[in-house]
Amino acid sequence: MKELKLRVIPNFPMIKNGDDLVEIILESLETNGCQLVSGDILVIAQKIVSKAEGRLIALDTVQPGQEAETLAHQTEKDPRLVQLILNESAEVMRSKPGVIIVRHKLGHVGANAGIDQSNIEQGEGESALLLPENPDESAKLLKKSIDKRLDIDIGIIIADSMNRPWRLGTVGEAIGCAGIMVLDDRRGETDLFGRELKVTLINRADAIAAFATLAMGETTEKTPLAIISGWEQGLGEGGGAAEIMRPIEDDLFN
Amino acid sequence: MKELKLRVIPNFPMIKNGDDLVEIILESLETNGCQLVSGDILVIAQKIVSKAEGRLIALDTVQPGQEAETLAHQTEKDPRLVQLILNESAEVMRSKPGVIIVRHKLGHVGANAGIDQSNIEQGEGESALLLPENPDESAKLLKKSIDKRLDIDIGIIIADSMNRPWRLGTVGEAIGCAGIMVLDDRRGETDLFGRELKVTLINRADAIAAFATLAMGETTEKTPLAIISGWEQGLGEGGGAAEIMRPIEDDLFN
Repeated sequence: MKELKLRVIPNFPMIKNGDDLVEIILESLETNGCQLVSGDILVIAQKIVSKAEGRLIALDTVQPGQEAETLAHQTEKDPRLVQLILNESAEVMRSKPGVIIVRHKLGHVGANAGIDQSNIEQGEGESALLLPENPDESAKLLKKSIDKRLDIDIGIIIADSMNRPWRLGTVGEAIGCAGIMVLDDRRGETDLFGRELKVTLINRADAIAAFATLAMGETTEKTPLAIISGWEQGLGEGGGAAEIMRPIEDDLFN
Repeated sequence: MKELKLRVIPNFPMIKNGDDLVEIILESLETNGCQLVSGDILVIAQKIVSKAEGRLIALDTVQPGQEAETLAHQTEKDPRLVQLILNESAEVMRSKPGVIIVRHKLGHVGANAGIDQSNIEQGEGESALLLPENPDESAKLLKKSIDKRLDIDIGIIIADSMNRPWRLGTVGEAIGCAGIMVLDDRRGETDLFGRELKVTLINRADAIAAFATLAMGETTEKTPLAIISGWEQGLGEGGGAAEIMRPIEDDLFN
């Protein structure tokens, strides 16, 4: 019987711009007596990667342009926040009062370009946290550094909570990956009765991100770190979350 | 440190119309020395529920109407299969050669109304497997029966693989639930810094379905049963997967 294990790491410290995330992650694992071994997948909440990378922007420093002012008026949002959303986006897809759904430059479609104002020290004035500039690269660097420090070979997923069309409630999705098979391509394989499989592509990264994000949010004290252990077939070929993005011309919901 | 465990149950037998699913599940757990206890969530692949409920339809018995013939021509699909898709759907949302995306009568938006032709004994002629008629009710009945037989209180999720807009690769989603909190409503709660949480609704059922479906498909021998154990805060108030459906008038992607 196959068994997978997910551990959620408690008592993670607040992260600030410039913090050495690898150092803090390794300390936190040690403090909690939690060993990371080859084949494990470390799921990291986007928020701490963004914070460490200095993606927290004070709204006072943002000068909204005309497009942002107009959209802010239509959606009843802060024009400075809307300017940040526009800066991060390739395309505004839908909007209504309270909601702006965009295609992020990274390809993800979602509300507010993934910009978040919760669990952020507001300090002097309001601020907003952007997604990491290149989460696949962030994941790669984290993996490289952790692998080297512990002499192991792990997978990394940077995960963020997303809203979806048609279904209520957020689920975690992968925005940055390293060292794992992101999409499992079963094209050409046959089913139990020899018929060619119709479902040929399985999104492994999003499924793992979904469960880990739920578990991380379930603790009384929200925590940004989870470890999944026990995949029988190893982590697979390493790809990035960029692989997940369906080519725009193939999508029926643009 | 919180720890969750997922077990995938191997060697599950083929299911036929009229099979006693509860009996077969309990036997399978016993054969595998796998104990189910209160607080566990049993994730069951839609396919075996559909099969047991007689939702396998021989295409020879289907007489396509004019709408099905037209759509079949446009999408290069079997008109009999298209007729089944239309029977199961509230609305055809998009179509192109090879693809028909509908809103299922149950509310789920996806390809082919969840109708599947893989892992199905084709017998004399081609057949197709429909979703259970009322998966929430199926989940409720399964829970009631298993709870009674083992004198426990578990959660049940019936899960199916779904395609999504914008993101490649299928993930499992919940289509039937019993005995679990499907949506975790955090409205009014504050974040770590006292700001009201923007993300107020967390989809627990879909996140669990996603991970379990991935794990079930990962075994060399595909298996339709997984058990998740270890939620600290229990299973929560029981709702159905119907709760997940966003009201059509609130959705921006119709």
